[in-house]
Amino acid sequence: MNLDDRTLIIILALIIGTTLISLIYAFFLKGQLTKLKVGNSKIEEISSYIREGTLAFIKKEYKIIAIFITGISIVLALLGFIPALKNAEGVGWKSALCFILGASFSGLAGYTGMLAGIKANSLTASAANTSGMGKALKMAFSGGSVVGLSVVGFGLLGLTGSVLVLYLTLGDLAVVGQVVIGYGLGASLVALFARVGGGIYTKAADVGADLVGKIEAGIPEDDPRNPAVIADNVGDNVGDIAGMGSDLLESYAGAIISALTLGIASTVYMGSNAALFPLLIAASGIIAAIVSIFIIRLREWKDPQKTLNIATYIANFIVLVLAFVFSQLILKSYKPFFTILVGLVIGIFIGFIAEYYTSEKFKPVKEVASESNTGHATNVIAGYAVGMKSTATTIIVLVSGVIISYLLEGMYGIGLAAVGMLSTVGITVSVDAYGPISDNAGGIAEMSKLDEGVREITDKLDSVGNTTAAIGKGFCIGAATLTSLALFISYALSTGLSAINILEPLVIVGLLIGAMLPFLFTSLVINSVGKAANKMIDEVRRQFKEDPGIMEGTSKPDYAKCVEISTSAALKEMIVPALISVLTPIIIGFVFGTKALGGLLVGALASASMLAIFMANSGGAWDNAKKLIESGKFGGKGSEAHKAAVTGDTVGDPFKDTAGPSMDILIKLMSMVALIIGPAIMHIGSLLEKFF
Amino acid sequence: MNLDDRTLIIILALIIGTTLISLIYAFFLKGQLTKLKVGNSKIEEISSYIREGTLAFIKKEYKIIAIFITGISIVLALLGFIPALKNAEGVGWKSALCFILGASFSGLAGYTGMLAGIKANSLTASAANTSGMGKALKMAFSGGSVVGLSVVGFGLLGLTGSVLVLYLTLGDLAVVGQVVIGYGLGASLVALFARVGGGIYTKAADVGADLVGKIEAGIPEDDPRNPAVIADNVGDNVGDIAGMGSDLLESYAGAIISALTLGIASTVYMGSNAALFPLLIAASGIIAAIVSIFIIRLREWKDPQKTLNIATYIANFIVLVLAFVFSQLILKSYKPFFTILVGLVIGIFIGFIAEYYTSEKFKPVKEVASESNTGHATNVIAGYAVGMKSTATTIIVLVSGVIISYLLEGMYGIGLAAVGMLSTVGITVSVDAYGPISDNAGGIAEMSKLDEGVREITDKLDSVGNTTAAIGKGFCIGAATLTSLALFISYALSTGLSAINILEPLVIVGLLIGAMLPFLFTSLVINSVGKAANKMIDEVRRQFKEDPGIMEGTSKPDYAKCVEISTSAALKEMIVPALISVLTPIIIGFVFGTKALGGLLVGALASASMLAIFMANSGGAWDNAKKLIESGKFGGKGSEAHKAAVTGDTVGDPFKDTAGPSMDILIKLMSMVALIIGPAIMHIGSLLEKFF
Repeated sequence: MNLDDRTLIIILALIIGTTLISLIYAFFLKGQLTKLKVGNSKIEEISSYIREGTLAFIKKEYKIIAIFITGISIVLALLGFIPALKNAEGVGWKSALCFILGASFSGLAGYTGMLAGIKANSLTASAANTSGMGKALKMAFSGGSVVGLSVVGFGLLGLTGSVLVLYLTLGDLAVVGQVVIGYGLGASLVALFARVGGGIYTKAADVGADLVGKIEAGIPEDDPRNPAVIADNVGDNVGDIAGMGSDLLESYAGAIISALTLGIASTVYMGSNAALFPLLIAASGIIAAIVSIFIIRLREWKDPQKTLNIATYIANFIVLVLAFVFSQLILKSYKPFFTILVGLVIGIFIGFIAEYYTSEKFKPVKEVASESNTGHATNVIAGYAVGMKSTATTIIVLVSGVIISYLLEGMYGIGLAAVGMLSTVGITVSVDAYGPISDNAGGIAEMSKLDEGVREITDKLDSVGNTTAAIGKGFCIGAATLTSLALFISYALSTGLSAINILEPLVIVGLLIGAMLPFLFTSLVINSVGKAANKMIDEVRRQFKEDPGIMEGTSKPDYAKCVEISTSAALKEMIVPALISVLTPIIIGFVFGTKALGGLLVGALASASMLAIFMANSGGAWDNAKKLIESGKFGGKGSEAHKAAVTGDTVGDPFKDTAGPSMDILIKLMSMVALIIGPAIMHIGSLLEKFF
Repeated sequence: MNLDDRTLIIILALIIGTTLISLIYAFFLKGQLTKLKVGNSKIEEISSYIREGTLAFIKKEYKIIAIFITGISIVLALLGFIPALKNAEGVGWKSALCFILGASFSGLAGYTGMLAGIKANSLTASAANTSGMGKALKMAFSGGSVVGLSVVGFGLLGLTGSVLVLYLTLGDLAVVGQVVIGYGLGASLVALFARVGGGIYTKAADVGADLVGKIEAGIPEDDPRNPAVIADNVGDNVGDIAGMGSDLLESYAGAIISALTLGIASTVYMGSNAALFPLLIAASGIIAAIVSIFIIRLREWKDPQKTLNIATYIANFIVLVLAFVFSQLILKSYKPFFTILVGLVIGIFIGFIAEYYTSEKFKPVKEVASESNTGHATNVIAGYAVGMKSTATTIIVLVSGVIISYLLEGMYGIGLAAVGMLSTVGITVSVDAYGPISDNAGGIAEMSKLDEGVREITDKLDSVGNTTAAIGKGFCIGAATLTSLALFISYALSTGLSAINILEPLVIVGLLIGAMLPFLFTSLVINSVGKAANKMIDEVRRQFKEDPGIMEGTSKPDYAKCVEISTSAALKEMIVPALISVLTPIIIGFVFGTKALGGLLVGALASASMLAIFMANSGGAWDNAKKLIESGKFGGKGSEAHKAAVTGDTVGDPFKDTAGPSMDILIKLMSMVALIIGPAIMHIGSLLEKFF
């Protein structure tokens, strides 16, 4: 069955309708949260500082992003006027508009989610204070849901909207597929800034707050006397909520775009049907998220782990049912359904593997904790080895997924597996965002000097959040690898390359440079955290020294100054990595040609995936080894082993929260840039390829 | 000019003659060393312990290697009887014999070099005691020369001898090229054991000696009361001398074999001439090493740095002159000469880059030292970032070399560049081995309680050795990358693959698994060091506890027990990594086919190169940051910064001395295995490839 034009347009409109329902639901939930009164002046005061700090950062960050976006969109638009690029549809003013739309919607999703998150922080703290676990859990879950629904709502609305408008004006799906890549590029660029900028921000504040506050001044974590404590909290919002959200929004958009491109080229199915299918799966995921969130909110839960699990199960079940229906209805085959299933299953497996290597329940973390007994170095070495080892099973699961989905549906199958993995992203982000919200609620409870019992509730909420965070990170990496792979295949398709032969020297050269980039990028990002943290340390020391009243609790520290320092440092430091990610594919492409650029993408994909898995799991293992020791094992709090474990945790912080997650974006952004410029290189030609 | 058979055979015989001269000179120098009397009973006693310990390790190690070698050679020989493999010349009894020869000669070179090294250790210490710098330098240099001359002598003798015998019996150079790969595989396998086993040994002993002796018992480094001190010294011999020697012997053999294979397939030159050229370059390198060592030994030098530099300059100059002559004479073109030049130049550049990132004279190490002021974690993070950053320039230099040599001579040019880089390996190994010899001489001086002034001389000798070690490590990595690349190209040639297309899913799957392996391998090796070190720590603690006389200096510690522990731990732990390196290519190849195996090789090549560069330079930076602080900067010895720097140094130890150097072998060994089994897979077919 080939869909006629009218049916196609109606279905696209229905998908847009679904995204609108998702956004309406998100704004309804957000409205509910906004209406609620916190009812505790101390919490409100703290919360207002965090809110101000976050907005100050976002405002500055978005200004810098706007400059980048404007510059790139002008270049994209102007490229369209070059006669040689008349047929390179990836560039031109239409693509530039998509690019602006992708960037704006990603920004909007991050902004909406973050505001809801901040409000939910204080409501969760306050609910834990007045009504207990059930209510607190509901607040945290609601906040997370707004983030999740905004990410998928905005993400798919913009994408499907672009496809519909472009199809109505251009009439040719193949051209639409090329132009709409601009949307993915826009989302990628914002994600890079959110992840890298947010990551540098949050770790600089964290390290600064810890090193001077906890170690030098001897005051507890989240003590309101610590000038950097608000910046630390702001960092959690911008890094863990907005950063994570835009990372997954980008994977989501990227996976759909690549499956769409591969679908259009399908020789097995009618192009329009195959292109529509991933969009329908994404819409199914949105429906699944809405229904799941709706069901969970019907009654009050007490057990956070169970609640999050049930939400996830419901969503997965709905997606699978709908995927089966659409697979039969649109593509008349069970095979596309199985590729979706493969994607879902490997996403879950990779999450479990991440949990195994980073949870204190299992052997790896116990070993890292036990190695802390022989000192700082052995702790560091053990955590390092755990992360490296975790690459093995993760990669084996990933490649199994690639093999099975390829056997089912060829290249298109790999694209579908990525879409399948990301189809439940609405609920994944909701569950992921729940973590930092609970964590921040705990911080606010501490800062507001609420009862011990309150902190116990938020700690219980948060402990579940730690597991979801580890699983979520594994999921982000798996999604990024699979998406980049699908984008890479789309790249070859769009540049008409039927083979990228690693026996050709330029391909090998590209591959080696590509494999090197993630190492360089990591080094830059980690250095940036160090530099920013040092500035923060100096500022906190200065405040303690110049105003002894702060430590006595008689005068208020200058929170805004610390926020300001983290903000400018993070924004300044994120520019070079951003430029490297955008410019390297352009330079390699125009100097050495499309094949070398293909090599670059694969090299970067391989090494960034390994580094991302390694750094995320090493970081998680160090973190939980420290927590295990703090719980009284292997010497307990204050022992020499604990000091060693703190070192490991501090080493792991930039690993798992800054450099690691940046790897995901790096490879997706590079693939997007390649996808945009590939056809342009083909038309113009490269500088040196002819000599080889 | 096409060489007639007779000329070819004469030239091969002349090359063999050169290698014999090199070996005669090596044994002459070794004889001179052996004849010399140490003349100090304390030194002789210590030296005899080291000698015994080394021989005990070597004996056990060679036993295990012999089992592996026997098993693999039987498999290789039996494979030749499979009818389907009648035309796969890489397997069969001839190849098995080459394999045994390669393993034996590599073992012989390591054994000879090590014995000379041990003798030179004590002679250097004794000379520093009785005659001063000039004589001590001469002893250390002589010891290093024996190692260098044995490596190139044995390496090229076995290889050229095999080529000659095979050519005389088979008559077809193309077949000879395939059979002789067995020689490379044998050398690779021994190198893996020497590097991994030696690396685990040396670091377990080092960490064990330091943690209990220096930190717990508070006795200085190299104190004879420390039971692990002899094991530590044995480790330096087996890891830094035998390990490094067999690593480079393997690169040397691998580079020549791949250039030979590529030369035979040359369409520009006559196959026999192109195949002969790399052998002639290697022979030129041997002549260069002999002449250079001879000239240096004509008079007594005082300045170690100057001496080593002059030796290197002379050797480079001679190689270049001879390369120019042979290029014109044999290939009638200046281009092959330039590829040799390219190889030499990038080898030197990579060495310089390693020096920049790891010498206390430059900014990176200063920064690591300065970051030690804020604690253990910031020191670790800074060192980590330095290593990662160093991948950028190193890879850019490497790929520039690949590009230029390809433009000059195509794939053959890449092979020649590898040969060029390794042509001066005779003198490189001599200079490299000089480092651990001087280091050990210092240890012996300390243990024998010689004057302060003696230690000053050996420290001065050793400080030059540190620079040469960093440069040498960079060189090993560059050589390994280039050699593996050349072997990879030979692999494609031998399996008749004209394209390995990364758009094919099996190639991507192979590539991802390949990129993962070095991470898994590193994790295993690092864990092994930890496990072995823990056993050593327990033993040293036990000895101190059970016999208080040891600390009082009244009773002798049980050195042999510590040697025994390091020996069994190292040998036990090296088996799994060895199996992984050998079995993975076989499994991937026979299950997914030759293209997937090609992907595996490239993925491993890319990620192992990055990890090798990163770990070597991070390790070097941490080491020298500690030394910089110990020299009085940034707080000096005993400060908090110093403790942090010690942590970094301890983390870096398994990085730079165990895992890092193992990467080089891993990729070369995998390439060799692939090269051997590739044609067999082609003939038999793979299990799953047909489904893709």
